[in-house]
Amino acid sequence: MAALKGKWCTETYRDTALSFRIKKKLYAKKSGFQMVEVYETEKHGNLMALDGCYMVSEAEEFVYHDMLAHVPLFAHPNPRNVLVIGGGDGGTVREVMRHKGVTNIDFVEIDPDVYEVSKRYFPALVKGLEADKRVKFKFGDGIKFVKAARSEYDVILIDGTDPSEIAGGLFGAEFFKDVHRALKPDGIMCMQSEDPWYDLDIIKGVQTRLKKIFKKAGLYLAYIPIYPSGMWSFSIASKRYAPSETRNKKSKIKKFRYYTPALHKAAFELPQFVKDGIK
Amino acid sequence: MAALKGKWCTETYRDTALSFRIKKKLYAKKSGFQMVEVYETEKHGNLMALDGCYMVSEAEEFVYHDMLAHVPLFAHPNPRNVLVIGGGDGGTVREVMRHKGVTNIDFVEIDPDVYEVSKRYFPALVKGLEADKRVKFKFGDGIKFVKAARSEYDVILIDGTDPSEIAGGLFGAEFFKDVHRALKPDGIMCMQSEDPWYDLDIIKGVQTRLKKIFKKAGLYLAYIPIYPSGMWSFSIASKRYAPSETRNKKSKIKKFRYYTPALHKAAFELPQFVKDGIK
Repeated sequence: MAALKGKWCTETYRDTALSFRIKKKLYAKKSGFQMVEVYETEKHGNLMALDGCYMVSEAEEFVYHDMLAHVPLFAHPNPRNVLVIGGGDGGTVREVMRHKGVTNIDFVEIDPDVYEVSKRYFPALVKGLEADKRVKFKFGDGIKFVKAARSEYDVILIDGTDPSEIAGGLFGAEFFKDVHRALKPDGIMCMQSEDPWYDLDIIKGVQTRLKKIFKKAGLYLAYIPIYPSGMWSFSIASKRYAPSETRNKKSKIKKFRYYTPALHKAAFELPQFVKDGIK
Repeated sequence: MAALKGKWCTETYRDTALSFRIKKKLYAKKSGFQMVEVYETEKHGNLMALDGCYMVSEAEEFVYHDMLAHVPLFAHPNPRNVLVIGGGDGGTVREVMRHKGVTNIDFVEIDPDVYEVSKRYFPALVKGLEADKRVKFKFGDGIKFVKAARSEYDVILIDGTDPSEIAGGLFGAEFFKDVHRALKPDGIMCMQSEDPWYDLDIIKGVQTRLKKIFKKAGLYLAYIPIYPSGMWSFSIASKRYAPSETRNKKSKIKKFRYYTPALHKAAFELPQFVKDGIK
């Protein structure tokens, strides 16, 4: 097995490294919060990394954004007021916008540079965001924003990075309590919650905290090939509705690229080692 | 993003490279058929590669073996006579052995060196195989073996490598016709069928051929972190039974590591891009 020849980008994570052949590096600059890099890859389109971790690629971004947005928005019968925390690349907001019944989307990203880089290198992710009057850009700290909200939102989506210095607070009990308070009495929250192969302990912690604070909590999975193991988890918690069921009949979206109503339910059926790991 | 420092093994596949940190290389030798390598990795246990492609790791082997063996063996109401083609590491046969109703397992691996290497470096995979009188070791060419068989098997499992020179025949119509003839009138076949992210065209070809030859055919997925995208597919075809349903009540297996009866059905719910790609 030979060493890599030619030009590659590489993410190293817990004794695993995932590399993609690149045409060139397009961007690399420290923002006020993190190192932002963009590569033009051979097979995955443009690829963004934050602090050395792959975040989003043009070719596969639909998986993450379909699954973070549509599972909670179809589990809720009639989502109107939605809050997106993080997700500065715009892709999550773009999918929320497809739900015609949604009347307001508060979009709270801490790092404006991520949005600017996305506008430049990932145009499909931000398409229509600025023209859609439902989208309220509120650059700032999502944790502080949620603390000030009261029974306002039908759905809150948390699209943060790994639980490091900048996003660690998005995985804690205090934040989850604030999210619970910011939701209406039948509200649903959903968040990315890391990789079951490499970080099952983090997922267990998130699930345990959510189950204490919300009436219902669940975990579902999706295949994302730009993350080191290819398996990714989302944690969802609800004040009333079972999140693995679809009940929204108002968001008439005809075509998805990853999500399907049948996959909504199926994605909650966990492999035994994941069930055991979060018990 | 920095280059890899220290000792790693790397598989390169279609402009993607997946590397694992290793303690040392344990084995590297050309067999009569292929280059066989074994690495002691930091996090995945011992890892075997054939012709530079990762095949099996101690830490995650249960996913592939659970899903290749248990889905067809639970879709069949009463599997007794089983044929395993390939799978020289022993893991698939080990899982078939757990089904108490199975009375015979013909194990046809082309490369005896793979089995010998597995005995030495992957003892958990071959555990009990030689002591179990139901297991008939028949080293040789699986394609020729199947050609000579007539209505004998309840289940045939095809555990081959990628469709290169050595295993390419395991993906063709002629072989599938031979498998069909080798199965009893209610028999089921199941095979690994590559990665939907990188080889959807191969999967489409397999599915198209199986649908022409068998009454029912289906595709299901599993998360395997040692394969470059982490997403793997299995193609299953049946002369009578719908393969996504469980109907075997005789194989009373109490505990799995990946498979569950609910996941059996759920694994057939495909993401939209996979559904579109195999149409």
